Order: sequence, then structure tokens, then C-alpha cells
Amino acid sequence: MNRLIECVPNISEGRDAKKIEQIVSAIKQTPNAVLLDVDSDHDHNRTVITFVGDDLSVEKAILALTEKAIALIDLNHHQGEHPRMGAVDVIPFIPIKGATMENCIALAQRVGKQIWEKFRFPVYLYEEAATRPERKDLSNIRKGEFEHFAQKILESDWAPDFGERKIHPTAGVVAVGARMPLIAFNVNLGTDNLEIAKKIAKAVRHSDGGFRFVKALGFALEERGIVQVSMNMTNYKKTPLFRVFEMVKREAERYGVSVIGSEIVGLAPQEALDQVADFYLQLEDFQSEQILENRLEHAQTKS
Amino acid sequence: MNRLIECVPNISEGRDAKKIEQIVSAIKQTPNAVLLDVDSDHDHNRTVITFVGDDLSVEKAILALTEKAIALIDLNHHQGEHPRMGAVDVIPFIPIKGATMENCIALAQRVGKQIWEKFRFPVYLYEEAATRPERKDLSNIRKGEFEHFAQKILESDWAPDFGERKIHPTAGVVAVGARMPLIAFNVNLGTDNLEIAKKIAKAVRHSDGGFRFVKALGFALEERGIVQVSMNMTNYKKTPLFRVFEMVKREAERYGVSVIGSEIVGLAPQEALDQVADFYLQLEDFQSEQILENRLEHAQTKS
Repeated sequence: MNRLIECVPNISEGRDAKKIEQIVSAIKQTPNAVLLDVDSDHDHNRTVITFVGDDLSVEKAILALTEKAIALIDLNHHQGEHPRMGAVDVIPFIPIKGATMENCIALAQRVGKQIWEKFRFPVYLYEEAATRPERKDLSNIRKGEFEHFAQKILESDWAPDFGERKIHPTAGVVAVGARMPLIAFNVNLGTDNLEIAKKIAKAVRHSDGGFRFVKALGFALEERGIVQVSMNMTNYKKTPLFRVFEMVKREAERYGVSVIGSEIVGLAPQEALDQVADFYLQLEDFQSEQILENRLEHAQTKS
Repeated sequence: MNRLIECVPNISEGRDAKKIEQIVSAIKQTPNAVLLDVDSDHDHNRTVITFVGDDLSVEKAILALTEKAIALIDLNHHQGEHPRMGAVDVIPFIPIKGATMENCIALAQRVGKQIWEKFRFPVYLYEEAATRPERKDLSNIRKGEFEHFAQKILESDWAPDFGERKIHPTAGVVAVGARMPLIAFNVNLGTDNLEIAKKIAKAVRHSDGGFRFVKALGFALEERGIVQVSMNMTNYKKTPLFRVFEMVKREAERYGVSVIGSEIVGLAPQEALDQVADFYLQLEDFQSEQILENRLEHAQTKS
């Protein structure tokens, strides 16, 4: 596949395996859409679905999935720990290869328009596709959740980007947007002192003056008796993993604590790891075309 | 492609672009063989050709290339700086993905047998495909080169693995073998003191007590006014790049010298770089399936 766009719809059903399977099958039945991952969480009562494809197949697949989810999920009877406002709660489009952010924004607009027109399911555009600054942040849109959205949608600032000021009676509203791939990256510290993890999280996260594309929290890993700086890397191209890792290590040193390991949770694009190798080996002029697998793909595309 | 074997024939022609093109076209005309690189050296009068494919296409392509090279190259009129004994001088098969060393050894035997039977071009099996210890090292086989091989082939120890004790009159003899991918990896030092590069090369190379799969030399990079530890990493799985890089850095420290950069020359398998990221980020339990591109390939293969 030459152009690769990822789509990660989150649906508000994490318990009923039969319903989840029916909804996911919409992806499997779409030609050229490739299902990569289905991750259901019982406590959250939510499933995160990951698939990829070119523009057209991703568009077809997400519309089919949305139709199925609306038919099967009724938010009036949904309970779970994770905040949510829609049967399909959020639909991000993510450029992976041969696609730009602009392609993904255009796709979000095209899909958002159809979701309203076909299903009467009101749409808010978010992140890079947002039409106003206060809609960039998904949590701003979601505030109040399904239970209060019938009111919120009437407020002057909260007219949907596509749709009338009336929630779908069972499906609520949905956020559709474009963003960079998100990498869940955790660094484990050799201490049980939670304060240290919290201080380091504060030092590196954007909201407190740290790196532009890092969200971070400090957690205790009770069973292991250690603490963790748990991060979402929201743009690995501009804020690379190695830079944040080095900063966490340096801050930990200050407290006499060492980094004992790290984790990437879920998927990461190859490029995010290649950056790390490039940095630590101090490579001069290394081109991604020097990686044998990339050269092969390039040669096959030409022929 | 599910099973990926690389083949890197070296031919004894690096000057006549027309002849080189004719020889290389044998690869291009073989279905499912993908040409990755052609690197001609005028002084060496030698061309290194890199291509990949599954077992069958690699077998077909290398036989077609050998036939062309024998027809076009006459070693009686060949001069160049690089030692050589055959029109096609050496043919290594290299497991890249979904293929084992055993697959490549079997391929070397199959191809070697046919090269003798079809072209009367005597074959020595080398490296992992070698039939005796003294034939593992290519330079042992090549000693004497084309000019003395009519004699050498008669010596008791030097009967070919496939063929009679008589060189091909214009093409000589060829070495066919199996090996791991070779990565050319150079580390640059912030000094013009060649002795330091030589001492570090000696410290890390196998022949002087260093790492099992490292060959190393110290060189001066005159134009840049620095020196370099120039290495061939002959098995990145067992002797990974990061370990050798760290050792070079540590040895350089001893002389008060710093590492100012490194280079990978030519191609490297993706896995060799993934190892580096894994090491420096101290990743816990990272699986190659967590790389989005790998997951996609896996999903496509299943469907």
C-alpha cells in the first residue's frame, strides 16, 4: 500500500463480545481496509479498534462501522469508567505513510459530513481538524458526556460542525478528527516514591512547561513496588522518544533514582524507533532507504 | 513476500557500464527477483549487485546472471585492485526474513551444483556452506587468485566442491556460500591520532580477542582530519551494533577522545536498528509486532 492512513475509532461497548464482533466485522468486510487491533476494556466498557488503509477504503470502512455501532449501542444503558459522549465516541484519522496531515483533515471533514447526512449523528471536528481553538482538545468537547449533551448542544458555543442542535437519541454525538500517531510510552523508576514520578511527569509535560508534545502522569506500580512516568507522545516527529527519555533519566538522577526500564504500550510507527537508533549511534547522514526492507518496498513500488 | 533471501554476487567488471547493465538485466528479467543495488568500483574493477526474492526466484536469477557474466567477462584481461578468482567471484545467500541459515545453505548447494553442471564453472562452498573448516574464510579460497588457480585447483586440499580440477578458461572459479547479513559500521573519533583508531579496532575485533562477529581496522579520514574505526559486523543478532558502539566509546574515553559520529554504509536489516532502540530505551518486553508496519504486513499475509 502506497498511502497509509490509520483510523482508531473508540466505541462505547467493551463487554458484549458478540456486539463488538458485529461492529468490527464492518472493517473486515471492506476491501483494502486492514484490521490491526481490537482492544476491549471491561471496566471502561469501551473498545479501541485500529485499522489502516488508503483514503477510500478507510472512509468506507468507518462509515460501515458507524452504522453498525449506532444500530447496536444505546448510550442510555451504557455505564463505564471512561468518559464518553457517543456510541462511536471518537474517530481520529492518522497519517502513517505517504499521507499528510492535510489529507487526514480533508478525510475527517468528508466523513463527518456523511455521518451527519446518513445517520443524523451530530459531529464535532477535533484536534488538527478542529474549526475553533477550544475544540482542539477532545476532553473540552466531551465535558458533560452523553448525559448532559442534550443541553450542551444548545449552548451558543457548542453547535456541532456537522448536524443540527439535537443529539442522536441513542448514539449521542461523535468527535471526528485528525492527529499524529500517539505513542504510549512509560518509563519505570527504581523507587517506590510516587512523588518523584509525579515531579518528573510535571517536568516533561507540556501543560507545566515541558515538551510541546508530551502528556505525562506519575503512577505507582503497586505489584512491582516501583513508580512510573506514564506518557502520551502526541507527535514523535517533533518531540522524539529519545529526547524525553534522556530528560526523564536526567531528572531521576537528581533524586538519586535510576531508570530501570521503559515500555511502549500498543503500536508505534517504525520511524519512531529508527529515530532512537539514529540518535544513540550518532549516525551521520543515515537515510531510511538504507534499511533493506524500505529499499525493497521502494523497488517493488517502482516496478 | 513472506520468505526473503538476499543474494549479493560480486562480478569482476566495474568499468564497462554496458557489460554491467547486460549482466544486471538478468536479475531484472526474473519474476519476483527485486534488484536493490548495483555498486561499481572503477579501481577495484568490480561490481557488487544486491537483490532479493524467495528461494526459487533467487535461484533462477543468479543462474541467469552467472551465464551472462561468463559470456561477457574474460579474467585473462582483467585488472583491478580487489583480489578475485572468478568472473562471478563470490555468491553469498543471506537469510533476511522468514528464512533460516539452513535454507540458505541448501540454496548454495543447489545453485553450486547447477553452476558446475550448466557452465563447467568450478564451485567452492564457503562460510556457513563450507564443507571443511579452511574453506569457511573466503580469503583462504581466493589466495593465489585467477592467475594461480590453474595450479591451486590441482593441490590435494583444493578440489572444488562441485566440478573437476580444471578452472574455466576465461571465468576461473567461483565461491558460493551462505552467511548472515553483513553491516558496514564505522565509528568516527574526534582526533587525528591514527594509533588510537588502530588500538580500538584491535580491542573490538574477533581476531585479536574482541567480539566474535566483528572485523575492524583503524583508518585516517584525511579530508576531515579525524580517524575512524571501520567495522564489518558479520552477525548483528549475536554481536549487536549497540554493544560494539558502547565499547568503542568506552575505549576512546580512555584516551580522552570522544566519538563524534557513526556511519552505516549501504544496507542494514530493520531488525539491526530495532535492537538499538530497544537497548537504549531499556524497553521491557517490546515485540516486533508492536511496530505498526510489521503488524500490517502480518495482517495482510493472513488475509
